Amino acid sequence: MAKLIECIPNFSEGKDEKIINGLVEVAKSVPGVTLLDYSSDTSHNRSVFTLVGDVDGIQEVAFQLVKFASENIDMTKHQGEHPRMGATDVVPFVPVKDIDVAETVEISKKVAERIANELNIPIFLYEDSASTPARKNLAKVRKGQFEGMPEKLLQEEWAPDYGERKIHPTAGVTAVGVRMPLVAFNVNLDTDNIEIANKIARIVRGSSGGYKYCKGIGVMLEDRNVAQVSMNMVNFEKTPLYRVMETIRFEAARYGVNIIGSEVIGLTPAKALIDCAEYYLQVEEFDYDKQVLENHLLN
Amino acid sequence: MAKLIECIPNFSEGKDEKIINGLVEVAKSVPGVTLLDYSSDTSHNRSVFTLVGDVDGIQEVAFQLVKFASENIDMTKHQGEHPRMGATDVVPFVPVKDIDVAETVEISKKVAERIANELNIPIFLYEDSASTPARKNLAKVRKGQFEGMPEKLLQEEWAPDYGERKIHPTAGVTAVGVRMPLVAFNVNLDTDNIEIANKIARIVRGSSGGYKYCKGIGVMLEDRNVAQVSMNMVNFEKTPLYRVMETIRFEAARYGVNIIGSEVIGLTPAKALIDCAEYYLQVEEFDYDKQVLENHLLN
Repeated sequence: MAKLIECIPNFSEGKDEKIINGLVEVAKSVPGVTLLDYSSDTSHNRSVFTLVGDVDGIQEVAFQLVKFASENIDMTKHQGEHPRMGATDVVPFVPVKDIDVAETVEISKKVAERIANELNIPIFLYEDSASTPARKNLAKVRKGQFEGMPEKLLQEEWAPDYGERKIHPTAGVTAVGVRMPLVAFNVNLDTDNIEIANKIARIVRGSSGGYKYCKGIGVMLEDRNVAQVSMNMVNFEKTPLYRVMETIRFEAARYGVNIIGSEVIGLTPAKALIDCAEYYLQVEEFDYDKQVLENHLLN
Repeated sequence: MAKLIECIPNFSEGKDEKIINGLVEVAKSVPGVTLLDYSSDTSHNRSVFTLVGDVDGIQEVAFQLVKFASENIDMTKHQGEHPRMGATDVVPFVPVKDIDVAETVEISKKVAERIANELNIPIFLYEDSASTPARKNLAKVRKGQFEGMPEKLLQEEWAPDYGERKIHPTAGVTAVGVRMPLVAFNVNLDTDNIEIANKIARIVRGSSGGYKYCKGIGVMLEDRNVAQVSMNMVNFEKTPLYRVMETIRFEAARYGVNIIGSEVIGLTPAKALIDCAEYYLQVEEFDYDKQVLENHLLN
């Protein structure tokens, strides 16, 4: 059984094709690694890569990508809507197959240490790799952004986990950590009232009292005149998609509003959807690992 | 992209451990092939093996298993509840990955020809490999069973597709063909009235006017005192599981009966369940091949 790890590094460059193509070249150059997807957003000025690989390959490709970004992206000139603190802003690792969170955390720490030692980029460990509860949340780690990092690193509680207390002059600071696979799940309502989507988002998301592993906001789909509850499901095993779907359904009903559809954006683990099929079909005693044909074909 | 084919041969031996273990040994001996599962039923006196392999491996293992069965199972002495006509009763092939039905049919014919030529077992091609519409249905091909085959082979319309018009003296006749993956799906009702399950089975199954790719009967779960609609979904893309589920729900309602659960038995392709999640979650524009992470990991 071969261990497989996903890595989804975020780079602070979404416009310059030469740099993006250079990252793609690096991503494809490491044996044992497959580049599944990459996308760039010009208004965010940011690119997200999705890679999967074996234990050695994923460490090497993560390091080489951070190295290339540090040599080619200059944060002193970076502008974009998305919060960011480094040329490589964040390097999340996700255990995919035959490997647990603890072992993946060890791998994330090895990569973090190598980046700090060889590239002189200070590293914050976040999420499951975090050294303190205060560092679990990426938004808190990144607060102050690139411009505020020189000062933040000197604050007593914000010494980096690896590297020195000063930013890399052009590559800034990078966050490295292990998280569960994230599913981007949006539910569309038959209303053009964004306030209803906002109210429901507050009900289902963990931060305001809803489901712990759901993040959400109300969004207006301007082209369709449809209000949407836009969510990140950050642990689909503990907060499954069907549960927020049914909660949105009964909360929307009080306004006479119905669900008209949903969106699953980008890659999703099969289990996030099969768990929902099990619920709706009321399947008794289904064994995901044993009964799904494809699970026997991965090796 | 590596082509993968599943093979699910059925053997007319479900009691003799020496013979079953011998089949297991053969199943494990061919490179490029994985034995996913096997199970034996003593009242049926029958064993079902589930293998998956590449194009060369699956052909070789199918032939070697039929050879071993022909040398070790004597149909003149076989008794069991399940209809059967050969030591290897049926050899279904299922396209699993990066291969279509047409190419799998060609592979099934090569295996069929080799069995006839080298082992002197006459072969009927069935389902998607069938040479005439009358031979598509395995039950019709097998009608008369082992004991009736000598006479059947001499009938004008029942010349075998490969081999001579006389049975192998101890191994009988074998059916070889390509079919879609089958999902065994049972729906449990909150009634002990088997007649309601029977009525609903007749409504949903294709043979009596229901969904073309659903086969079904009513069954009593004696230990739970629960009536069940027991089904084989023979093409889950054309007749999806959720559609029979919802049909059973509204048909049961006329008797004041509810669904209390369902069972998915044995192996199922992920897509059969993910299609249901898409329906119930009302997902717009989901691309199964591209958006399911695991599909990028199979190679």
